[in-house]
Formats: sequence, structure tokens, C-alpha cells
Amino acid sequence: MGLFTKDIKTMNDLFVHQLQDIYYAEKQLIKALPKMAEKATDATLKKGFMTHLEETRVHVERLEQVFKMHNAEIKAVTCPAIDGIIKEADETAGEVADKSVLDAALINAAQAAEHYEIVRYGSLVAWAKQLGRADCAAVLQKTLDEEHATDAKLNKLAESKINLRAAS
Amino acid sequence: MGLFTKDIKTMNDLFVHQLQDIYYAEKQLIKALPKMAEKATDATLKKGFMTHLEETRVHVERLEQVFKMHNAEIKAVTCPAIDGIIKEADETAGEVADKSVLDAALINAAQAAEHYEIVRYGSLVAWAKQLGRADCAAVLQKTLDEEHATDAKLNKLAESKINLRAAS
Repeated sequence: MGLFTKDIKTMNDLFVHQLQDIYYAEKQLIKALPKMAEKATDATLKKGFMTHLEETRVHVERLEQVFKMHNAEIKAVTCPAIDGIIKEADETAGEVADKSVLDAALINAAQAAEHYEIVRYGSLVAWAKQLGRADCAAVLQKTLDEEHATDAKLNKLAESKINLRAAS
Repeated sequence: MGLFTKDIKTMNDLFVHQLQDIYYAEKQLIKALPKMAEKATDATLKKGFMTHLEETRVHVERLEQVFKMHNAEIKAVTCPAIDGIIKEADETAGEVADKSVLDAALINAAQAAEHYEIVRYGSLVAWAKQLGRADCAAVLQKTLDEEHATDAKLNKLAESKINLRAAS
């Protein structure tokens, strides 16, 4: 998309732009998740990041499927939001000296990424339906459901173990 | 926090760091929300942004209250995540030619900011409780409840009106 041009003229353009944005975001997460898994000390958290990495690879494939279904070019546009979320995760993690506190910070960072995706996929599903693309909406909904499930798992892990250990 | 230093040694340090991060984020939103209200064309959305601006001012005051209750210096640290979310909102809005499509994009941008805050306040409430600061948790919970309510309002507005109009 060009700077100072008005390239988004219709709801369809916004939908495709958002697909390109989240496509970029998922690809950045594929790079970030192994690093987070490496930093994590809790075994369940480490495993959770690796499981989510596998899911994220499927999310990328699903996005490519939706691009094709919608006859749109498979393309990523830079997403400053996910770049900021990942940068903040790196910076904060780099400042944490204690291992269990680091796990608490890593979970929080992962949840920020999950919620970003939940918002974007939520809009994509709604917009696909309004554009008469229930087929695309159904594919995107699968990913949205998985992002919600991951967020719930992270929440449970934080509450049941990580935060308690970090505060002890 | 210094680069390449490990300034976060305890859960308490992480809690204070997160307070400083969200304090910065709320202050950036105070600057961003009037611009979003100005760009919005739907009257309910415009008013919604202005109402949330007033709430955000209260959130800043509550954070200052928590800093004081916790004997921590009132200080903001740069939060690359909210900077990225706001930058993306600006960029996308700048590319939208159609007014009703712009409203759909603005709602989506606002929800990204809301969800970022929901994650951070969610962790702050949990961490405050684990640090034995139920008093701080109670203050932060008020803001968390308001962020959830704002997100729900935005969702309802998007589904009931804005998206339909943008796709028509």
C-alpha cells in the first residue's frame, strides 16, 4: 500500500488488507515463538510455545487458502502492531533476571500477541460474512477458535503455576 | 530500564515495570483518541471515542493512585506495542478512501488497543493479588472492567451498524 495514497476503497479492500496484515503477523510469530520457547524455563510453558508454533504454521496455510479462495494475491504487509508487541516482549524478557519471573513475563507477552490476533481474526470473520464469503469466514473461524483456546491455556497456566512461583 | 541490564529481579519489579508500560500506553491513547474521533464519520462512534477519552483520563489517574499506594515512582516507560498499534491505526486509516469503510477500520483499530489493555490490566490484577496487594488489584480491576465494557460496545456497534454500512 502506498504512503499518502488511498488504496482501500471498499470493504473488500479492507478485508484483503487485513488478511495481508495478519499474514505478516503470523509469519513474525513463527520466528518469535521458538525464541520464546528457548527462554521459557517451565516445561509446560516451553511445550505450549512449541505446540502453538505448529498451530501458527497451520494458520499461515489457512490464510494462503483464504487468499486463493478470494482470488487475492498472497502477500504480506508490514504490521507495526505485531512488530511492537514482539519488540516489547524481547525488551522486557531481556531485562528479567529471575527465571520464574521471566516465565510470567513471557506468558504475558504471548497473551498480548494472542489478543492482537483475536481482534484481527474476529473482524476478518465478521467482514467475510458481510462480503458474502461464508466459506472464507468458516476457515478463519477455525483459527480464531484456536487463538481463543491458546489464550485460555496460557491464562490457566499463569494462574495455576507460573504467577504463584514467580511471586514466591 | 537500561539496555543490557537485568533490572527486573522480582515479581514486584515486573509489576512496577508493567504499571509504567501501561501508564505510557494510556497517555498515548489520550493523544490518539481525539484524532480517531475526528476521523470517524458515524456519530455514535465519534461520541464513543470521546467517552472513552474521558474514561482513559480516569485510568491514568487510577494508575497514579496505584503507583502511590505501592510507593513506586510515577513514571512511564516506552511501550513499543501500543506505539505499533497506534501507528498501524494511523497508516490504515490514511489509506481508506470510503467513509463507512474508514469507520470499520477505526473500530477495529480501537479494539486492538482495548485488547492490548485487557491483557496488561488482566496480568496487573493477577500479579497485584499474588503480591498481597488486593487494594491495588481492586483499583486496577475497575479499569479492566471498563476496558471490557468498551470492547463490548465497539463490537456491538460494529456488528449492528458500521460493518453493514461499510459492506453495502
